[in-house]
Amino acid sequence: MNYISDSVVKRLPGYYRHLHHLETRGVTSISSQELGDIMGLTASQIRQDINRIGATGRQGCGYNVIELKNHIGMVLNITEHHSMVILGAGNIGRAVAQSDSFLTEGFETLAIFDIDEAKIGKEIAGMPVRHLKEIDSFIQENHVDIAVVAVPAQYAQEVTDQLLELGICGFWNFAPIDLKLPRHAASVNVHLTDGLEVLSYHLKHMDD
Amino acid sequence: MNYISDSVVKRLPGYYRHLHHLETRGVTSISSQELGDIMGLTASQIRQDINRIGATGRQGCGYNVIELKNHIGMVLNITEHHSMVILGAGNIGRAVAQSDSFLTEGFETLAIFDIDEAKIGKEIAGMPVRHLKEIDSFIQENHVDIAVVAVPAQYAQEVTDQLLELGICGFWNFAPIDLKLPRHAASVNVHLTDGLEVLSYHLKHMDD
Repeated sequence: MNYISDSVVKRLPGYYRHLHHLETRGVTSISSQELGDIMGLTASQIRQDINRIGATGRQGCGYNVIELKNHIGMVLNITEHHSMVILGAGNIGRAVAQSDSFLTEGFETLAIFDIDEAKIGKEIAGMPVRHLKEIDSFIQENHVDIAVVAVPAQYAQEVTDQLLELGICGFWNFAPIDLKLPRHAASVNVHLTDGLEVLSYHLKHMDD
Repeated sequence: MNYISDSVVKRLPGYYRHLHHLETRGVTSISSQELGDIMGLTASQIRQDINRIGATGRQGCGYNVIELKNHIGMVLNITEHHSMVILGAGNIGRAVAQSDSFLTEGFETLAIFDIDEAKIGKEIAGMPVRHLKEIDSFIQENHVDIAVVAVPAQYAQEVTDQLLELGICGFWNFAPIDLKLPRHAASVNVHLTDGLEVLSYHLKHMDD
């Protein structure tokens, strides 16, 4: 496939989500203009993005909703099953473990780890919290492709380095630092505060 | 101020965060090229963004890190204090209530509400969980500008409508739906699954 820029990749989950909503509402085809209105993008941007990922519409017919959704799902690689381990059984780790929405999208949490003896053995979403020292054997015995980093900032890089050594290449990072990774690994940072700051902007400039 | 497009606004928290890191490391000035390398943007994009928000560098000297950080903080309106109430004392609500990082940025949680009798009165981050039926009087007696919507999807719009009637205009929405809002209100949606899907893409295309 052609190289797809990060900004396009970041928009793809939004396309997937909106197309899924349209599908559940029984909408079978949609024009770039209509899709743009829903997503807050221009029709031209929509056509560029969709063209970039190698999908096509039919002149005058718009895009087939299900075909386009499936194509984007394939590009995003979410048609495959992903297995995750969660590092840190605090609020974020628990929220991720207990949410159904990740599993629905094919991201299954296999285990949750912590170092706090008070938490070890307690159940979260049906899984006993395991001690971090067990992670080596767990990863050798189970196929894991994503680590959810939900530990305090000062431990995040250390835990990540340990997981890199065990062959994990995907990191979903909730710690407020940028993880240092080798070229063969990837991370996505969740910076929750960023959203609040964007909201703060809109509260001030609502009438612009 | 000039109109700033959504895509620029969304990048501003990243600028703010990286400039803050540079400041704490004692870096006093930075070129658009260096800042671009850190942020994964081109130097030209950096100059355009910064120009768009009315800040300037000095020819040959780059940008003054502290000045630029403060300017972006002003544009984002995060120099002002914001008060939040949290709707929903589940994992997400608790994680937001217990995080220090929002308060550090000036976003203070005043109260947390739920409808589950088993949760009412229990303390989270030093605050007793209040019953949702008390929210009217709470908002009349306290200045609140942001509601954190952390309730199940099927209640999210209903709770939002109730808060709109009480004069709340800012919604930080964790429910996996797009809230319907009047023009005078603003929301930012946290779609956690989007990040996972972007990570899924990168896991597949790491060697591209």
